[in-house]
Amino acid sequence: MKPATPVEVCPPSIKFSARARAITSSVIREILKITERPEVISFAGGLPSPATFPVEVMKDAFDRVLMTQGKSALQYGPTEGYAPLRQWLADHLTHRGMRGLTADNILLVSGSQQALDLLGKCLIDPQQKVLVETPTYLGALQAFNLFEPQYASVASDTHGLQPDAITRELAQDAAFLYALPNFQNPTGRTLDAARRHALVERARQLDLLVIEDDPYGDLRYRGSAQPSLLSLASQAGYEGVVRMGSFSKTLAPGLRLGYIAAPHALIKKLVQAKQATDLHTATLTQMAVYEVVKDGFLDTHVPQTCALYREQCDAMLAALKQHMPAGVAWNAPEGGMFLWVQLPAHIDSMKLLDVAVANNVAFVPGAPFYANDVVANTLRLSFVTVSKEKIAQGVEILARVIKQYS
Amino acid sequence: MKPATPVEVCPPSIKFSARARAITSSVIREILKITERPEVISFAGGLPSPATFPVEVMKDAFDRVLMTQGKSALQYGPTEGYAPLRQWLADHLTHRGMRGLTADNILLVSGSQQALDLLGKCLIDPQQKVLVETPTYLGALQAFNLFEPQYASVASDTHGLQPDAITRELAQDAAFLYALPNFQNPTGRTLDAARRHALVERARQLDLLVIEDDPYGDLRYRGSAQPSLLSLASQAGYEGVVRMGSFSKTLAPGLRLGYIAAPHALIKKLVQAKQATDLHTATLTQMAVYEVVKDGFLDTHVPQTCALYREQCDAMLAALKQHMPAGVAWNAPEGGMFLWVQLPAHIDSMKLLDVAVANNVAFVPGAPFYANDVVANTLRLSFVTVSKEKIAQGVEILARVIKQYS
Repeated sequence: MKPATPVEVCPPSIKFSARARAITSSVIREILKITERPEVISFAGGLPSPATFPVEVMKDAFDRVLMTQGKSALQYGPTEGYAPLRQWLADHLTHRGMRGLTADNILLVSGSQQALDLLGKCLIDPQQKVLVETPTYLGALQAFNLFEPQYASVASDTHGLQPDAITRELAQDAAFLYALPNFQNPTGRTLDAARRHALVERARQLDLLVIEDDPYGDLRYRGSAQPSLLSLASQAGYEGVVRMGSFSKTLAPGLRLGYIAAPHALIKKLVQAKQATDLHTATLTQMAVYEVVKDGFLDTHVPQTCALYREQCDAMLAALKQHMPAGVAWNAPEGGMFLWVQLPAHIDSMKLLDVAVANNVAFVPGAPFYANDVVANTLRLSFVTVSKEKIAQGVEILARVIKQYS
Repeated sequence: MKPATPVEVCPPSIKFSARARAITSSVIREILKITERPEVISFAGGLPSPATFPVEVMKDAFDRVLMTQGKSALQYGPTEGYAPLRQWLADHLTHRGMRGLTADNILLVSGSQQALDLLGKCLIDPQQKVLVETPTYLGALQAFNLFEPQYASVASDTHGLQPDAITRELAQDAAFLYALPNFQNPTGRTLDAARRHALVERARQLDLLVIEDDPYGDLRYRGSAQPSLLSLASQAGYEGVVRMGSFSKTLAPGLRLGYIAAPHALIKKLVQAKQATDLHTATLTQMAVYEVVKDGFLDTHVPQTCALYREQCDAMLAALKQHMPAGVAWNAPEGGMFLWVQLPAHIDSMKLLDVAVANNVAFVPGAPFYANDVVANTLRLSFVTVSKEKIAQGVEILARVIKQYS
């Protein structure tokens, strides 16, 4: 991978801040540019399947809002978000076992990525420790990086992060632990029930704040639902879990709408930060989404998405089983959009990508997802936007490339 | 003003960052809460008049986009923004004398406030100097504050900031100068032509980056249009001017859509920062706004807004002339939404506000708009959302309160 980096002269009047100089271009972004060639079968994207977007329903909702409340939908709104949607979210989460939540515990944000930015702003001091899974979500690292933390990676395996690995010393002076318990991006793995209980108990003992990022939790198509960390904490009376959610995977990502559920003292600070950051999330969008969700649309819509994603996942698992050589391992996710492949130890997936793209198949190398020690022989495959035929074809090519490379 | 500040216990797991601890609640925000009482005549808001929102036109645009390009409108989009809208903006600015711009010089953002956040992120190091007008836009101070600058206020008068006051020493090591040349928020004043030329020349000599924030520039209803700082700089071959614009005042603020025009090297860095901050601005909104503006809708729409705002402004000027006692001075803005009142030196407008609100009239005290030495006997009046009858009534009450206070 040698992404094009044209030399460009920066006018002398422009002097980047230290945090800006430290930003590097996203590897995934550069890959996605290459894979825009139509002949490439791309398992690299992180995009939900557009087949699941409820276009008609969204159109009707925007129509209804603009026809009946047009002026207020187009006016500035409160930084906290549209009150009925905050209340709906509080009720929705309460219904799922998260206790003690009211609308005052909810902040609407411009997608989960903004939740990461605001939490970073409010919680991370330069050089402060932030605990993450091994590996973890690249977008979170990118968001937090602007606030210049030091990452400590918590030991993790196929069942997710290991609560026992969070020692008192590791948690000491940490801003928080960032965790993705359901169908994690990038690995697709899920934190098992015993570890969820152990993690919340460990956090409570150490007064460690846990940020639970759960954009994929509703997309479960196998196994049984696990309790959210926030539900376990709220049932144990521990206030140190903050939950992030999103409408990107259940409705549509182009809306840019997500939320944070947190203790009110933190919400108040996040609101002040959001006011300074972008005043508020688009009023019209929040009102239209409320129109869509208020009568239970997601209860029938999300299962359809799950059914599709399960089929896609199964197609990829079958193709992997059929084509991959010995020494290549992968997991079978219970939901979400991704699975994780482990190559023989001597294969660097970053180098493999060059060969794969030359053969018109793309994936995301595992390396950028590791905050600390990189495991180079890993890669992420997304199975939701490629047809089943192309999945079979693409996996076969990828297997051939791996065999040649071995 | 004693805004309610309930004591709230923050869970011990939550430790705010230094930058978050330094955030204080916005004075304006607290005032706006009080003025939500329907009996209060509020000149405090910064909201455009909803009478100007083109609800039908927006509804048709959202319909059209969702019917013809629904899937892509709801999918993730490029961080830079929707390509046709970037091109439209480049053409629009070129048409107004800003040379050398292509779509690559344009970044679409979630309202001007996000432009301030991203520019702060990319350009301000802690304790670095930022030059601002005296007074300046409070929202900019709030956005920049999160990056912990030191402000240096440039001497300014009724014609705007004084370029002569920008000495080499003042400009030394400054991240940038932040300027609002047209109908500035809060004062409503406009930088005159001679000073625009002098400012650009001075910036060029000192290699001082200038951020030109121009949300109100299209709302001119008196006098003649002044060249933008970016147009003057581009004509002089100076690359050190960055321009911010917004659809909030020409279409509707609830959309949260603005833009930055800048040298490509800066755009590239801002794109990386925006990717980490919120991935991209809502695709659907950008596509709908493009549908609205592409055939010249603003050319007929904005003059209607100007005509309304001029009437409102004139009503307030007439009321001020009729009712205000000697010793109170104000300006006659050539556009925009605000005017600036100077009270007798002994009146602190922050204290006056308590009395005014008790008499059911509200305004924003001048103090929070000063980055350095506060001039306490000033206040901002917004004239665009209150009916002419209420303007007359509210100004009469305010004059009475001032007389009692004197």
